[in-house]
Amino acid sequence: MNFTRTMKRNYSKLMFKQLFDSTSFTYTYIIADLNSKSCILIDPVLEKVERDIKLLKEFDLDLKYILDTHVHADHVTGTSKLMETFPNSSWVIGTKNKPNINFQRVQYVKDDDEISVDDIKLKVLETPGHTNGCISFYSDGRVFTGDTILVRACGRTDFQEGNANQLFDSIKNKIYKLPDETLLYPAHDYNGISNSSIKEEKLYNPRIFETQTREKFVEIMNNLNLAKPKLIHVAVPANLIGGIISK
Amino acid sequence: MNFTRTMKRNYSKLMFKQLFDSTSFTYTYIIADLNSKSCILIDPVLEKVERDIKLLKEFDLDLKYILDTHVHADHVTGTSKLMETFPNSSWVIGTKNKPNINFQRVQYVKDDDEISVDDIKLKVLETPGHTNGCISFYSDGRVFTGDTILVRACGRTDFQEGNANQLFDSIKNKIYKLPDETLLYPAHDYNGISNSSIKEEKLYNPRIFETQTREKFVEIMNNLNLAKPKLIHVAVPANLIGGIISK
Repeated sequence: MNFTRTMKRNYSKLMFKQLFDSTSFTYTYIIADLNSKSCILIDPVLEKVERDIKLLKEFDLDLKYILDTHVHADHVTGTSKLMETFPNSSWVIGTKNKPNINFQRVQYVKDDDEISVDDIKLKVLETPGHTNGCISFYSDGRVFTGDTILVRACGRTDFQEGNANQLFDSIKNKIYKLPDETLLYPAHDYNGISNSSIKEEKLYNPRIFETQTREKFVEIMNNLNLAKPKLIHVAVPANLIGGIISK
Repeated sequence: MNFTRTMKRNYSKLMFKQLFDSTSFTYTYIIADLNSKSCILIDPVLEKVERDIKLLKEFDLDLKYILDTHVHADHVTGTSKLMETFPNSSWVIGTKNKPNINFQRVQYVKDDDEISVDDIKLKVLETPGHTNGCISFYSDGRVFTGDTILVRACGRTDFQEGNANQLFDSIKNKIYKLPDETLLYPAHDYNGISNSSIKEEKLYNPRIFETQTREKFVEIMNNLNLAKPKLIHVAVPANLIGGIISK
């Protein structure tokens, strides 16, 4: 067996790590350029920030951007706590989530914007529907979809200006237009599946497979009858300002 | 940004999926050759077998081997249930775990054995210490270590013929001899970290970093004072025969 050949394929100066919070079932992602030591972090969870800081410090990483795919309703983001620890970091969030306060070190992003730090390159896709301000990030063959589309599921559309018609457009006209082999990394999974691909979801997502009609999708989404997330009244106001919880 | 270039890098006919059981904090792995449809599965969990079968059937996969890194003490393996569903599958386990019954469709493997199914190639490393029969698998830049070494931790050595001296040798002389950039995929993680690398563990594993002495390691391991796993009396006898629970 030729081990040397395959070794090279997996070795890259870009480090990618998927992290999980087993309380809220949230995935957090780190992408780091191990040459320059710059890194970005997607969807941190407040209760897991100490773990994340320890990891970043082990690699001597300089956190440049903390990206939130949306204003989460089920957990508080770790953004503000990370910004305290890493003075060179800025918060990146969709332009439709502007809070009514003067919050420093924020970069509001819109469709087609690019986030670039040394060899880390991400492209913003506005993907409203789960919430009005949802964005996804495409980078290096991977798409980070937040709650827009999950593995064999998608985000609910019954609060925070959620809209099933908009979600249909975001998935069909943005996410599903990426190459089939793109790996899909969501903000949550409740069945222990770490990722998917565009092709898999087109074929097997029971809510929005490739040939699903808009009418059927909207009917499914408008009849889920889910209870509201327990933390919504704490999480949404806190997440609008990067996870600062008012005392 | 050149998206086309990076797309190709992630596209492969070999599919790799990491799966998680949030009750026992166990990782299960699927490696599939999407051309031939053959696949192997590492460390399945009984309670998650329906999820695994659904995934394999979606991809129309023919399960050839179910690999158990060891006789687990904290959960029951899904091997026997998977073998019922996939008639072409065999169980692969370390040669030191031979049960005293005539169990069909088993392949006992030892150091340096190779498991090969179409384009999927794995090499067996005997890594005793957590249990006497523990094995690890190396494949395509990844090592699946079971409980031999975990992210910033390692398996305990206080039952099932566990032995701290043997574990020291297995980690230092087998696992740490793999190239530094090899990605390390354990059987468990309790902090939501999905993987590591040989280099990371050599630098940051508090039990067995690169310059740790044998004496210090054995002292740490012999003074953990852990309670026994709750399921040990059910799991160990069941796992010796692929997860069949006697009624």
